[in-house]
Amino acid sequence: MTELQNIDLAITGAHILTIDQDMTEYKPGSVYIVGNRIIWIGPDDEQPGNFLIKERIDASGKILMPVFFNGHNHAAMSFLRGLGNDLSLDKWLNDFIWPAEKVMINPETVYLGTMLSVIEMVRSGSGIFSDMYFFEDQVARVCEEVGIRGIIGEAIFDFPSPSMATPQETMEFTRQLKQRFLGHSLVNVSVAVHAPYTCSPDLIRQAGELAEELDLSANIHLAETQTEIETISGLYGKTPVQHLYDLGFLSVRTVAHHSVYLSPDDRQLIKETGTSVVTLPNSNMKLGSGACAVGELIKLDINVALGTDGPASNNHQSLLREVQQLARLERVVNYDPTCISARELIRMATINGAKAYRMDKDLGSLETGKKADFQIINPDQPHWYPRYDPYNSIAYAMQSNDVESVVIDGKVVMRNRELINIDEKRLSRELKKKAGILF
Amino acid sequence: MTELQNIDLAITGAHILTIDQDMTEYKPGSVYIVGNRIIWIGPDDEQPGNFLIKERIDASGKILMPVFFNGHNHAAMSFLRGLGNDLSLDKWLNDFIWPAEKVMINPETVYLGTMLSVIEMVRSGSGIFSDMYFFEDQVARVCEEVGIRGIIGEAIFDFPSPSMATPQETMEFTRQLKQRFLGHSLVNVSVAVHAPYTCSPDLIRQAGELAEELDLSANIHLAETQTEIETISGLYGKTPVQHLYDLGFLSVRTVAHHSVYLSPDDRQLIKETGTSVVTLPNSNMKLGSGACAVGELIKLDINVALGTDGPASNNHQSLLREVQQLARLERVVNYDPTCISARELIRMATINGAKAYRMDKDLGSLETGKKADFQIINPDQPHWYPRYDPYNSIAYAMQSNDVESVVIDGKVVMRNRELINIDEKRLSRELKKKAGILF
Repeated sequence: MTELQNIDLAITGAHILTIDQDMTEYKPGSVYIVGNRIIWIGPDDEQPGNFLIKERIDASGKILMPVFFNGHNHAAMSFLRGLGNDLSLDKWLNDFIWPAEKVMINPETVYLGTMLSVIEMVRSGSGIFSDMYFFEDQVARVCEEVGIRGIIGEAIFDFPSPSMATPQETMEFTRQLKQRFLGHSLVNVSVAVHAPYTCSPDLIRQAGELAEELDLSANIHLAETQTEIETISGLYGKTPVQHLYDLGFLSVRTVAHHSVYLSPDDRQLIKETGTSVVTLPNSNMKLGSGACAVGELIKLDINVALGTDGPASNNHQSLLREVQQLARLERVVNYDPTCISARELIRMATINGAKAYRMDKDLGSLETGKKADFQIINPDQPHWYPRYDPYNSIAYAMQSNDVESVVIDGKVVMRNRELINIDEKRLSRELKKKAGILF
Repeated sequence: MTELQNIDLAITGAHILTIDQDMTEYKPGSVYIVGNRIIWIGPDDEQPGNFLIKERIDASGKILMPVFFNGHNHAAMSFLRGLGNDLSLDKWLNDFIWPAEKVMINPETVYLGTMLSVIEMVRSGSGIFSDMYFFEDQVARVCEEVGIRGIIGEAIFDFPSPSMATPQETMEFTRQLKQRFLGHSLVNVSVAVHAPYTCSPDLIRQAGELAEELDLSANIHLAETQTEIETISGLYGKTPVQHLYDLGFLSVRTVAHHSVYLSPDDRQLIKETGTSVVTLPNSNMKLGSGACAVGELIKLDINVALGTDGPASNNHQSLLREVQQLARLERVVNYDPTCISARELIRMATINGAKAYRMDKDLGSLETGKKADFQIINPDQPHWYPRYDPYNSIAYAMQSNDVESVVIDGKVVMRNRELINIDEKRLSRELKKKAGILF
């Protein structure tokens, strides 16, 4: 370290949960940031003195931890939130969602819908999300405007999409996105394959090859419902997981969403190939799909992360609520209150997401050299007392609004509940104006 | 109506969800209050003009609905929240909760613990809760200080309690409480029988008779776990429900908490006797107990209300989160997204609680002549857009902190997130001082 190095941002006095391999805590601790990276993190009383600090935030009495990593989303679908609920999945999709999407999906609605979701995500401590939808360049635009990280994936399936005439066009668009956002500070690109039941075997194979060629993550809805299991078994005489395995789609770059219906053999294939799973408990519950046996995956040391899914099937965007839901769902499914720990859950919501998308070198925990992506939480509220264990308080008692400030890529994106780069009041007025047309 | 009648409080401009029999809405609507009662409610443009209004709250753009009714709690247990989690129920109770209670329970901790929970309840829209614990006069003291309604029940079981030497003493204390709070504006009393496995048949019979004699509600933990079913079957050769039925304990004055393990015959007995059920989904999930088959109860037209349970087994105090949890749990248990509607859920959280405790003449819905107990919610936030249906937004997307103001018994208890009668900052300082001793 050179003498009198300039520090762009220093946070001091916080109870820091690093979520590193040893779950190191500093109480109180400090983080020093230059540009977008942590150049020092440690206990307050070991702070090095040879720094010129440009901006200091006193976080005394606050908890500082990595931002949440939202592993799967269709963020733009906020404009469909609450449309036609309490319905069977078929009726909901056929009579409400698909007709509405047909009329409503265009670059502007995708921009606006994603903006709504992204604001909700930041306000509940998420700093990155993986998205699968249409007009994903609009999602990237929102990320740049708000200052959140996004992994954008233009949805690939056999039939024409609202944005693309053919899957080949979509794959070509994915290739362009990869070029366009090469080295971007916030936006990453993925190959977003919709599902085994909406993509031909050939298309899945091609998409997998594209991901490999471009060195991108490939993500897919997999084994979400019993119906899917029956459909794929009828078509190919095997489980969806075995089907993808045989097509060479499963690998360390693959992220499988949902994975509610897995056989023991399926789990072995997921394990063997290094595939990650994103579990989405609130969506699976709301749609009546079932419960992913997360404990079984953890036993096999499979990497499991968390996601919200789109707002239309959840209906919120707070990853914290997924942590808290999985804590409860896993217990009731197993009739066992010991089956999953608060620490495991919080690793799933942070570092495991980064691992799933192979970004854990930079993201997911707070360590010297990693990117400065963290949230500051205010626990000085009745629902936090007493605080025997901070992980436990987060996994069971914390509320989304307790997130006070969010720093992403070294920049303050929300400070004291105010988004820095977005005029929320103006957005609210715009939404109301559009209400007649859109909603 | 007389000319120029004085109105103590008028709320205007709100989107009112009355939760009356017809689920009437006024959009925008007004509520006029004299003393602790609603003397007029209706659409804004039909407001009568012959009134002198002392205080007016403009609730334009807000949602106004009844407060939530928390049907079962051990509020003081907030001081045990987060103590020894991720453990089996046995280990948790034997190694943590019971030893801690032995040392920690006294009038002061009950007061402080209840205060914490009550603040959290008010801040998330609850205006009344039914409590079962020890030193319940301290719970009443909190209700008076904060301005919330409480139904207080000193826990009855065979062995000595932290506050009472014998169950007879507890029943005598219940008798005294009933006298002391006769006609009290906020505090009601119940006969709080702990459970079939902690009370002898004789004690249960006596407690039931006491409730009848004093015309009080009787509430009891019933059929909460598989272990309870086995214990009671081993002791008496029948289900806990049949056991209580044979003891004459089940009636329209009885409220059964949990009721996770019910046989079809049990349900018929509950139906036949007019017993109400309080379901506590988050507690049942966190403790790995199981899922109450709420849909089966509703089919039989049994009155089902909602509760949080104590903060140690939940770990929060927001009834809204129980609404949102049950919405999801019921769907995933039944693999069916159509099994329960948002409207039903919100009735369970309001009017059904009032019915369970036979208070629906005064509470649970907003109608002329009923008591003025309501919450004002701010939906002008990203996670509320779009708003196709307010019930749906509440049941899935709303956050506890969206409750802006709470009126109980005609008095503003929270205004713009500030509790009127409590100095939260002072309380927080007191808690920190006690932290060394208590936590």
